[in-house]
Amino acid sequence: MISKDENALDKLIHSLKQLPGVGEKTATRLAYFILREAESFSTHLAQSIVEARQKLQTCSSCCNFSENSTCFICSNLERTEETICVVEQPSDISALERSRQFKGKYHVLHGVLSPLDGIHEESLKIKELLTRIERGNVREVILATNPTVEGDTTALYIARLIKYNNVRVSRIAYGIPVGSEIEYLDGATLGKALQNRVSL
Amino acid sequence: MISKDENALDKLIHSLKQLPGVGEKTATRLAYFILREAESFSTHLAQSIVEARQKLQTCSSCCNFSENSTCFICSNLERTEETICVVEQPSDISALERSRQFKGKYHVLHGVLSPLDGIHEESLKIKELLTRIERGNVREVILATNPTVEGDTTALYIARLIKYNNVRVSRIAYGIPVGSEIEYLDGATLGKALQNRVSL
Repeated sequence: MISKDENALDKLIHSLKQLPGVGEKTATRLAYFILREAESFSTHLAQSIVEARQKLQTCSSCCNFSENSTCFICSNLERTEETICVVEQPSDISALERSRQFKGKYHVLHGVLSPLDGIHEESLKIKELLTRIERGNVREVILATNPTVEGDTTALYIARLIKYNNVRVSRIAYGIPVGSEIEYLDGATLGKALQNRVSL
Repeated sequence: MISKDENALDKLIHSLKQLPGVGEKTATRLAYFILREAESFSTHLAQSIVEARQKLQTCSSCCNFSENSTCFICSNLERTEETICVVEQPSDISALERSRQFKGKYHVLHGVLSPLDGIHEESLKIKELLTRIERGNVREVILATNPTVEGDTTALYIARLIKYNNVRVSRIAYGIPVGSEIEYLDGATLGKALQNRVSL
């Protein structure tokens, strides 16, 4: 903070500090950067923030962010309705799409069960997933939550809810990542990789 | 990137990527954070960006950012006009103010000489500093640029320009930082600390 009267600067630093991973120092650096750049830069940045927040809604089917009421994956008729891949965050979809292995639809939970952080079933898009399954087209649900305690718990929780619907439920595989060195991998990963070994 | 039609999101990520130290991953994380927060958050953030850039100008005297044509330090009559402390960035002022040792005025260069990055004399507020000195009140100029090659070069360059004006020119001291351990300090710092030893 450079003074008591520099209110616009203080305000900007304070606003930037609300962003995740941005502390006092980074916020100050970003603020000074914005001040040094041409005015068109700040206008453009501000505009894209407001526009994105206003235009993007959650897809009525998969709950991913989309400018339309149905996202481009859900409205793609070449992708099968029979398989739903359940992910924690919208960004997980782009990661999975990079594998070019999945030709079904997705479902975004927007979080994982974490009672200690106050995230319960109602905060996640679990009800929406059940509604999709009850419509009857779905044959398999792949649970692609992160390999963490919360991710596993959420996957197990959803698996139990779905099983009565005569739908196959699977979890993406734990194992050694491609390109890694066994020498440096942790015991938990190697343990899972041995357990889930595949016959050749 | 989650799709081809999510233009508002792509645009937001692209805008955020222009900020220093923000790459594709951080920009994506920030964008999703903005989308998840209430709409008032994004409006507020955008507003503070635009406002800061519009309201803040450079002080007509010291070139620091200020909402008024003269900043609160330059307009403080209790601070002497006789000593000017020259710094690289506005943020250096708040750091020096924390020392509570300096009761003069400041001058912000907005950078250092760095010919390889295309930063020459004209890009810095050196002319403005000379004009202040020529007005005649100044007795001492303290060069408080960073202890880097560019900071030293800039300090030497300015020192030579000023010397003809019958003004004392000094450089803030190099030495061991308070609270550090000599065992872990680098040779260059310790060398300077020995050279600049003070008689007791």
